[in-house]
Amino acid sequence: MFYHDRELQYKVRVDKPNPAFARMLQQAIGGIEGEIRVCLQYMFQAWGQRGPAKYRNMLLETGTEEMAHIEMLATAVALNLEGAPMSMQDEFAKDKMVGAILGGMDPRHIISSGQAALATDANGVPFNGSWIVGSGNLVADMYANVAAESTGRVLATRLWEMTDDPGMKDFLSFLIARDTMHQNQWMAVIEENGGLGAMPIPNSFPQSEEVQGFNYAFVSTFLGQDGTPAGRWTSGPSIDGKGEFHVEKAMPLGGIPVLATPDPRGHAQTEQMTPLGSIIGTVSDKVKGTLSGSGSHGE
Amino acid sequence: MFYHDRELQYKVRVDKPNPAFARMLQQAIGGIEGEIRVCLQYMFQAWGQRGPAKYRNMLLETGTEEMAHIEMLATAVALNLEGAPMSMQDEFAKDKMVGAILGGMDPRHIISSGQAALATDANGVPFNGSWIVGSGNLVADMYANVAAESTGRVLATRLWEMTDDPGMKDFLSFLIARDTMHQNQWMAVIEENGGLGAMPIPNSFPQSEEVQGFNYAFVSTFLGQDGTPAGRWTSGPSIDGKGEFHVEKAMPLGGIPVLATPDPRGHAQTEQMTPLGSIIGTVSDKVKGTLSGSGSHGE
Amino acid sequence: MFYHDRELQYKVRVDKPNPAFARMLQQAIGGIEGEIRVCLQYMFQAWGQRGPAKYRNMLLETGTEEMAHIEMLATAVALNLEGAPMSMQDEFAKDKMVGAILGGMDPRHIISSGQAALATDANGVPFNGSWIVGSGNLVADMYANVAAESTGRVLATRLWEMTDDPGMKDFLSFLIARDTMHQNQWMAVIEENGGLGAMPIPNSFPQSEEVQGFNYAFVSTFLGQDGTPAGRWTSGPSIDGKGEFHVEKAMPLGGIPVLATPDPRGHAQTEQMTPLGSIIGTVSDKVKGTLSGSGSHGE
Amino acid sequence: MFYHDRELQYKVRVDKPNPAFARMLQQAIGGIEGEIRVCLQYMFQAWGQRGPAKYRNMLLETGTEEMAHIEMLATAVALNLEGAPMSMQDEFAKDKMVGAILGGMDPRHIISSGQAALATDANGVPFNGSWIVGSGNLVADMYANVAAESTGRVLATRLWEMTDDPGMKDFLSFLIARDTMHQNQWMAVIEENGGLGAMPIPNSFPQSEEVQGFNYAFVSTFLGQDGTPAGRWTSGPSIDGKGEFHVEKAMPLGGIPVLATPDPRGHAQTEQMTPLGSIIGTVSDKVKGTLSGSGSHGE
Amino acid sequence: MFYHDRELQYKVRVDKPNPAFARMLQQAIGGIEGEIRVCLQYMFQAWGQRGPAKYRNMLLETGTEEMAHIEMLATAVALNLEGAPMSMQDEFAKDKMVGAILGGMDPRHIISSGQAALATDANGVPFNGSWIVGSGNLVADMYANVAAESTGRVLATRLWEMTDDPGMKDFLSFLIARDTMHQNQWMAVIEENGGLGAMPIPNSFPQSEEVQGFNYAFVSTFLGQDGTPAGRWTSGPSIDGKGEFHVEKAMPLGGIPVLATPDPRGHAQTEQMTPLGSIIGTVSDKVKGTLSGSGSHGE
Amino acid sequence: MFYHDRELQYKVRVDKPNPAFARMLQQAIGGIEGEIRVCLQYMFQAWGQRGPAKYRNMLLETGTEEMAHIEMLATAVALNLEGAPMSMQDEFAKDKMVGAILGGMDPRHIISSGQAALATDANGVPFNGSWIVGSGNLVADMYANVAAESTGRVLATRLWEMTDDPGMKDFLSFLIARDTMHQNQWMAVIEENGGLGAMPIPNSFPQSEEVQGFNYAFVSTFLGQDGTPAGRWTSGPSIDGKGEFHVEKAMPLGGIPVLATPDPRGHAQTEQMTPLGSIIGTVSDKVKGTLSGSGSHGE
Repeated sequence: MFYHDRELQYKVRVDKPNPAFARMLQQAIGGIEGEIRVCLQYMFQAWGQRGPAKYRNMLLETGTEEMAHIEMLATAVALNLEGAPMSMQDEFAKDKMVGAILGGMDPRHIISSGQAALATDANGVPFNGSWIVGSGNLVADMYANVAAESTGRVLATRLWEMTDDPGMKDFLSFLIARDTMHQNQWMAVIEENGGLGAMPIPNSFPQSEEVQGFNYAFVSTFLGQDGTPAGRWTSGPSIDGKGEFHVEKAMPLGGIPVLATPDPRGHAQTEQMTPLGSIIGTVSDKVKGTLSGSGSHGE
Repeated sequence: MFYHDRELQYKVRVDKPNPAFARMLQQAIGGIEGEIRVCLQYMFQAWGQRGPAKYRNMLLETGTEEMAHIEMLATAVALNLEGAPMSMQDEFAKDKMVGAILGGMDPRHIISSGQAALATDANGVPFNGSWIVGSGNLVADMYANVAAESTGRVLATRLWEMTDDPGMKDFLSFLIARDTMHQNQWMAVIEENGGLGAMPIPNSFPQSEEVQGFNYAFVSTFLGQDGTPAGRWTSGPSIDGKGEFHVEKAMPLGGIPVLATPDPRGHAQTEQMTPLGSIIGTVSDKVKGTLSGSGSHGE
Repeated sequence: MFYHDRELQYKVRVDKPNPAFARMLQQAIGGIEGEIRVCLQYMFQAWGQRGPAKYRNMLLETGTEEMAHIEMLATAVALNLEGAPMSMQDEFAKDKMVGAILGGMDPRHIISSGQAALATDANGVPFNGSWIVGSGNLVADMYANVAAESTGRVLATRLWEMTDDPGMKDFLSFLIARDTMHQNQWMAVIEENGGLGAMPIPNSFPQSEEVQGFNYAFVSTFLGQDGTPAGRWTSGPSIDGKGEFHVEKAMPLGGIPVLATPDPRGHAQTEQMTPLGSIIGTVSDKVKGTLSGSGSHGE
Repeated sequence: MFYHDRELQYKVRVDKPNPAFARMLQQAIGGIEGEIRVCLQYMFQAWGQRGPAKYRNMLLETGTEEMAHIEMLATAVALNLEGAPMSMQDEFAKDKMVGAILGGMDPRHIISSGQAALATDANGVPFNGSWIVGSGNLVADMYANVAAESTGRVLATRLWEMTDDPGMKDFLSFLIARDTMHQNQWMAVIEENGGLGAMPIPNSFPQSEEVQGFNYAFVSTFLGQDGTPAGRWTSGPSIDGKGEFHVEKAMPLGGIPVLATPDPRGHAQTEQMTPLGSIIGTVSDKVKGTLSGSGSHGE
Repeated sequence: MFYHDRELQYKVRVDKPNPAFARMLQQAIGGIEGEIRVCLQYMFQAWGQRGPAKYRNMLLETGTEEMAHIEMLATAVALNLEGAPMSMQDEFAKDKMVGAILGGMDPRHIISSGQAALATDANGVPFNGSWIVGSGNLVADMYANVAAESTGRVLATRLWEMTDDPGMKDFLSFLIARDTMHQNQWMAVIEENGGLGAMPIPNSFPQSEEVQGFNYAFVSTFLGQDGTPAGRWTSGPSIDGKGEFHVEKAMPLGGIPVLATPDPRGHAQTEQMTPLGSIIGTVSDKVKGTLSGSGSHGE
Repeated sequence: MFYHDRELQYKVRVDKPNPAFARMLQQAIGGIEGEIRVCLQYMFQAWGQRGPAKYRNMLLETGTEEMAHIEMLATAVALNLEGAPMSMQDEFAKDKMVGAILGGMDPRHIISSGQAALATDANGVPFNGSWIVGSGNLVADMYANVAAESTGRVLATRLWEMTDDPGMKDFLSFLIARDTMHQNQWMAVIEENGGLGAMPIPNSFPQSEEVQGFNYAFVSTFLGQDGTPAGRWTSGPSIDGKGEFHVEKAMPLGGIPVLATPDPRGHAQTEQMTPLGSIIGTVSDKVKGTLSGSGSHGE
């Protein structure tokens, strides 16, 4: 279970409030690269962890830290909204700056939340629980975590570039540092579980059951003469050390699929329920005339 | 299965990048009138097609073309984002124009995608798979396709009006032309399947099972004296040629619905579980006093 | 504005309550083919109608009728839920039938709503406002309405097949009849506005601005030898009477798109920011070794 | 910021695992009545709290407790999934019970999460951040909290009825007790802030600015002869003590709205852009014929 | 069933159209605090009402009124969009004001709807049916209704502050008045059903089944020395009059949860399937080396 | 642009149709681990690729292949639905097996699509565009791709376990093989771009700007005596080779956040707008009595 104190994990200072920047910070709260996602993702992975308890314990720790990150970001949003325009009264006529701020900010920061953060992204799109990845496979989950922390750190560096507010820059530098750690942390779990040799994930499925010849083949769907570009993935040993990369030209091996005629109780059009054999010959015969066809009341 | 080359179906040129226009183009990518929708819609209709194979084959062709349309639009977005502001540093103080651009653009085009298109609409709302209509009834699906291409072409003409960039105007003129064809194409399938006589859709349900008297009646819910306006739908032969339009004043034929009292295990309030007969008399009796009622600790 | 009485538009009788059928009826309430959608769609089209007032007036009438359809369906759901299992206590051991019902029903019909309808589809997915199409173009909207009523009628006929409850069958026969009318009604508006000649939609955009040669061409993306199947859309006059159908083999006219290198403040990887000219030669040189590369702490 | 230990707030014991009950428990995790919602709702209210700090402090405490509730529920789901069927191999033929369980459970509990909880509701619909209500008005938020805890407790009592597993019943009895407290707790804040006299919410808007005559009137939209039922809301002093309830028959005071004709650049159909005065006379004249009208290629 | 006339419930006048204000009004249409939500919420509560019919009847009346509120707001949006910019042609160069308007408005108001309202919120996020609360417990539903009308009135007062258009201010004053009534109305139903004594909701669950000691305890998760702040909820009689508030320090009573090892067919990593007893000793032994481990092709 | 033929990439054979398995296959089509997601993800990454063209070219190839995977899965769903029950007529009475199938299948596979695949997951939740990750940072995107292919392969192996249909097992073995390749392929791109040394991602942000001391620290939020478990992430060189792991006890460095009092035009409750200094003393004084307070009409 969980506890708290009233202080923030790191200083959140806003020297010059900027409602348009408040909107951008929302992406780090409620966006797919944001902190609600990683907080709940690590928590759900912990709560569903089967196998070595050390991973459950560690995931709980970082999930708990991420809750403190949401808290700091929500505070940063609230502080950036202080002094935000509460009226459009004269803005377009008198002061273009207010217009620009109103354009760049999220109006719901005023009209819905009263100068506070929302559980949404930078466009006001609500946080979505489908983003919480917890597959029950530890290494798959760790890669999902690395991906989340990577896009999260990319986001944070862009927010850092966006602002020249010293308080905000300092705060974002803290988040960026934590993302560095968390990327390393999840990779460390992968290393403990076999590193690249843990691939293909899951490693508990016998590769002898795979359709052979396709598990290390780059399938090229490109029609051009010059072919697919050479890359680390086109020849040489595979990254997991279990195969040899090669290139295969895409070729259909599956034939043309044939579905049964519709069940009459599914109420396709009558024309769709013709026996398959007679189709090509009959369709054009059946068409009596133009679109207004037999239904035209004017005929 | 599918193949590709590296060139675009049509030239995508941006003479003067405009991040606010990039945002608007997103509607044609990830909006309900957009190209991801029609691409997947035609594909799913093809893959689920039962009956004449020619429709499966043709739907595959146009679904494949639509993938190329998404590609062009995504390219157009990326090109319009070149030179977009990466910092708000001085914009509100020094340069209103940057503020206006920041207001009009999608901030996620910078902070989430790094100057690239997203799978969202013009407001950053993600593409939603519920829009993919494939009912298994060919004519119903064709009308859904006509509707998609009609709102899609309306959108494209409005985007054409929005911009004065010659490259963008030319590119949109290509999409508008394709929408013209696709509207005609889906109507052509309808014509092949009976035209207006294919109605009512599905035509495989026996109309004798319909509640008679209501299948060609305009039900007027309007209370005013002057009545419902006369229109093509108020008298004369129906469009499908199978009935005669007439007007019926809305009248309740269904009586007042009566639901059983709640199951006690569903834990409605105790007051809701009174035997039905005794309600009118008892409710007011039961109310002992004011809202703070028996729960008021101050009594 | 709106008024009501307490009776239903048509009789809703359930002879043998079936919670699994209640779940299926939800598709007609909160699904994309359902009545909340058409109710709000016609309302929003009415409220935004510009031009001839008769269409606003008529749309209001049918939008209002659809509200009565939601009411009947919600009642049908509530009646089908009477007697639904409130406990799983012994079902898997003693009575497989209860298990089957529990499997087939929506558990939220008990645990969330207490035996009442929800604003969701047959899988519990909530109604979504994005489905409300109102483009401001009357004919585009009418095709959207025809599509909605067509998939709606297909749904209703399938529900009719699913049940053998006489009350439910009768009720669905009423809805099916109304869908027949509404399909005809929206087509009647199209007829009043030029019929097939209203195409391409919008008809207010000058077709001379379209990229010529593509507005009546079927673009074939099929690679096979036997070519695209002949259909009404491959030759002959177009449906709108304004062009001639023909087939064009898909061919890329747009060249290979080239995007600028990333803005450094967008924090792509350093490797992505190489000048374009030097890429092919340098990438492979740069790769010093294996994936663990320079970061491997073990070296 | 936040801390944790590794133990649960209360004992979570599952005597007889039941995957169908696991699915139902999901409603209490990721549903609108569930614990992710209240956890984040109290947190966001705390983080955005302006004014007396005691409410921020207290909201943090209960938000933190709710995280422990999600943890217990996620554990309960995981335990109920132990022994769940991992294969459909023979179930329909040999063992109806397995089929019933498969029908009643969430298949994603196996195929997506590997026997662990998801951030979704009982139908697999993801948690949605739009549910997090934090308006910036303390009393409005408290009513939202009371509503959440009320529907939450109703849900928990229904889950209690659904199961006869002693461990689960005991665990749910704990949640039910906590919901009792939390309902009382939020009402206590309302009492501290004026109780019923805090209404109408917000109390900081001058009621003299309201359109008088409508702020304490029950507007009756019912058309029947017997009129609206008498209730506490039809006469007598209003609950907030600031007005007198009375009944008003619904009457339109707003006239018929008239919208301007469409802007030509919005590409409505040409027919919609007729000057308003000439509409009634001209529409029918314009209609040349039937739906296939001028577009019919057969002419 | 339902009826209508063509006039609005109250006058909707826009003196100076403002597309940015049109966007804000959308929150009151399709937002979680908006009118589609309350309209459908009261309707679904009415249609599912079991027990005293007077509540069904009354809910129908107010649900019907709310439909008229959506109508007025949709009209207000349409009027505010008249004269909105249809082209970005010169805005950034010539006229910053147009840029500011384009930034502040919803582009879909032009490109998707052609100057009409959408079924979305102020950020273009679609209305979502999950917001429709109808629990089957009358008092729980009334608190949900009070919460909706409270956040709705807060929203309306903020919109009133945002604009200085006399027509819009007058119209919003009408909505604000109606929200006052509706808050009082739902509280009046609560009073009729026992007032505060109706708590804890549901009142039909025997409180003796609650885990005693926790139903009136404020659980403090705060770690600081100064303890939780005193409040109405920390001591004294509970609001429902059925218990005595007290404070309990948060303490884990549930022990550490232990999940079974993963089912092999769920394909966790092999490393996760170690027998529980041997974990601590074996994990580190197993780790042979670095991340690139056995998979390194360079070995 | 794109092309196609009519054959499948690999054989899709269903020996014994199973509608419940059709539902499970939907997760691999429209779920977050599914093929629509990877198809569009690779496409959007290609279309937005800046820097070395070889990655754009390669991403296009695999994105195109994934479209063929959706095609095969949609075909597999359609084939599994042949013979599905179209009526519930007698199932609960006569044949429990049909009931079990109806419980386990997606009813929309009959009533919405007429025995065809949908763009949804196994619970009918629509595909969501927010899942398409394309950050503009090549390595971040590759980790997102590895994560997608890892959870995708875990899903495919579980589906393989679920069925004993030889055709389906063979088909899934093909998909599993392709996922093996794709995991290796994305890792190969990472290796080309520096392998583990590419971390922290983005590598273009100067680490000197990070808050030092936190970028390689495991922050322990655990309160227990025994401390955090030792792991690869608690000591030793970091995975990226640029720091040294160490453990830091969580400690608040940020002080207690203080927000300004609410802007009066945001219409918080009057009680919230008290000057900050006077709060502690005054709140309790202000509370005059009970909840029914000044609003009680009964006084």
